[in-house]
Amino acid sequence: VSEFSITILGNNSAIPRHGRHPSAQFLKIGNQSILVDCGEGTQKRLRDVPKTNLFQISHIFISHLHGDHYLGIVGLISSLGLMRKTKPLHIYAHEPLQEIFRMQIELMGHALPYEIIFHPLPLAGDALICDTAQFSVQTFQLDHRGPTCGFRFEEKISNKKINKEALEKYEVPIESWNDIQQGGDYTTKDNVTISNSELTLKGPKPRTYAYCSDTKYTETILPFIKGIDTVYIESTYTDKEEKLAAERFHCTARQAATLAKKAGVGRLLLGHFSSRYKKVDIYQKEAREVFSHSEIAEEGKTFQIELW
Amino acid sequence: VSEFSITILGNNSAIPRHGRHPSAQFLKIGNQSILVDCGEGTQKRLRDVPKTNLFQISHIFISHLHGDHYLGIVGLISSLGLMRKTKPLHIYAHEPLQEIFRMQIELMGHALPYEIIFHPLPLAGDALICDTAQFSVQTFQLDHRGPTCGFRFEEKISNKKINKEALEKYEVPIESWNDIQQGGDYTTKDNVTISNSELTLKGPKPRTYAYCSDTKYTETILPFIKGIDTVYIESTYTDKEEKLAAERFHCTARQAATLAKKAGVGRLLLGHFSSRYKKVDIYQKEAREVFSHSEIAEEGKTFQIELW
Repeated sequence: VSEFSITILGNNSAIPRHGRHPSAQFLKIGNQSILVDCGEGTQKRLRDVPKTNLFQISHIFISHLHGDHYLGIVGLISSLGLMRKTKPLHIYAHEPLQEIFRMQIELMGHALPYEIIFHPLPLAGDALICDTAQFSVQTFQLDHRGPTCGFRFEEKISNKKINKEALEKYEVPIESWNDIQQGGDYTTKDNVTISNSELTLKGPKPRTYAYCSDTKYTETILPFIKGIDTVYIESTYTDKEEKLAAERFHCTARQAATLAKKAGVGRLLLGHFSSRYKKVDIYQKEAREVFSHSEIAEEGKTFQIELW
Repeated sequence: VSEFSITILGNNSAIPRHGRHPSAQFLKIGNQSILVDCGEGTQKRLRDVPKTNLFQISHIFISHLHGDHYLGIVGLISSLGLMRKTKPLHIYAHEPLQEIFRMQIELMGHALPYEIIFHPLPLAGDALICDTAQFSVQTFQLDHRGPTCGFRFEEKISNKKINKEALEKYEVPIESWNDIQQGGDYTTKDNVTISNSELTLKGPKPRTYAYCSDTKYTETILPFIKGIDTVYIESTYTDKEEKLAAERFHCTARQAATLAKKAGVGRLLLGHFSSRYKKVDIYQKEAREVFSHSEIAEEGKTFQIELW
């Protein structure tokens, strides 16, 4: 069974404190290595935290251009150059980051040995922004100060299990099996199209993960996280800062749990903790009063999503 | 006696490895807090390393605009804003950094609560770039890829010791004593000027520190580091990479020691170590073959400069 996991590199909000780091997560989907957000120091975290791999990263998704979510990216890009990466790197972020890159890469005084393919994020609406053989990513709008995107990752389950009885019934030649395993329909000699679902066995549901940081409480995200296996929703504050949370366009842990519950998700990860809290147990406690499958996105921890 | 100390925050070259960090040093001169270079993660280092103080920093000097020397500065500036700093921050760096600041501060979405006073560094020659009541800084050119500046810090010894016998001899009234302690001359009723050196006792020599990173071996820096108490000279490589050092405009430890010896300095600190070395003892060994007062600029260590 292929892997689908989330490793937490940083779970703190803007000011790094109490040994915690700014936002960054390392995703492994199959053999693909993906980075979601890239706060200052992420390249060092990718060296220090087990089960992560700086060099293999092929896709980076940046939710928004506040420093604690992107300031590590120029250092990471530069180090990958010094390490002689040659495969292209796809970066999904809001437009202004491109100019920031350009200026700082120019200052390096030499070209990068690999290509950066920049994909600007939409300022409104939702969109399928990435579609590879192994996973796809849909983006949607969060409600924060300035444009901010959520990301919904879904694996692709290749090689569906073939329904042998159906293949025999429709006399499908062996040359077409591979195509059917990849999801294709079959057209008989008499020009009748047999849908793929009839030719294959119902397989496991593709695994899904959504990342929502930063945002205030908004139910507009519910359609995008509905029934998802694991969702990360920022919870900068606790109950007693509920007013502050709304003013600053952030969530409390209880609000994150309310969204998770309404969306019927499998598990909620809590993070982006305020620097005012040295210990973060209180977030989990308050979230679990609403939704029991709530967990702290503990730094250094890898959360596996199981196939079922 | 007031303090003059250098605390090492990072001593590694471009790719952070082996738990080492990119270039940054925290200087304490009297009650002034100064930062020299600011690689990625410096704000976190300033929280983790004892005897340093992020909030008190009033002056930042950036030697050149390669990522491992400046990428931490936007995060640091941003955090100081969130911490509600109000006193101005002086930044000395090459011109292009100003536009990088401007773009990234704009993305923060709110103004900083303190003023940044940007002082562009000269592209040629040497200059007195900073002159406060407690210290002065002279800059000079290093020889690296792209414009790179060295910095020479000198304390100001206020309150000279008065020569009582001389004051009585010239009948100096008590109202003039303070002025003489600050270095002023005295003019008698008969309009004769008595020089300050005659009215005060010979005090200790002001302490000095110079920072030279990055540079290849060049004797043009000798006049600026001559007789200095402590000098930091980069030593990216060891003897066996001497050719590589020249190609990449860096020094070996032996070359740094040769410069220190020729300049007759008190002590040499070695740093900017190549990521290829897990252990750095070899740098000290090779440097000491030329100049015995050579030391590794060990991360987390504070080097005091004593008055004498």
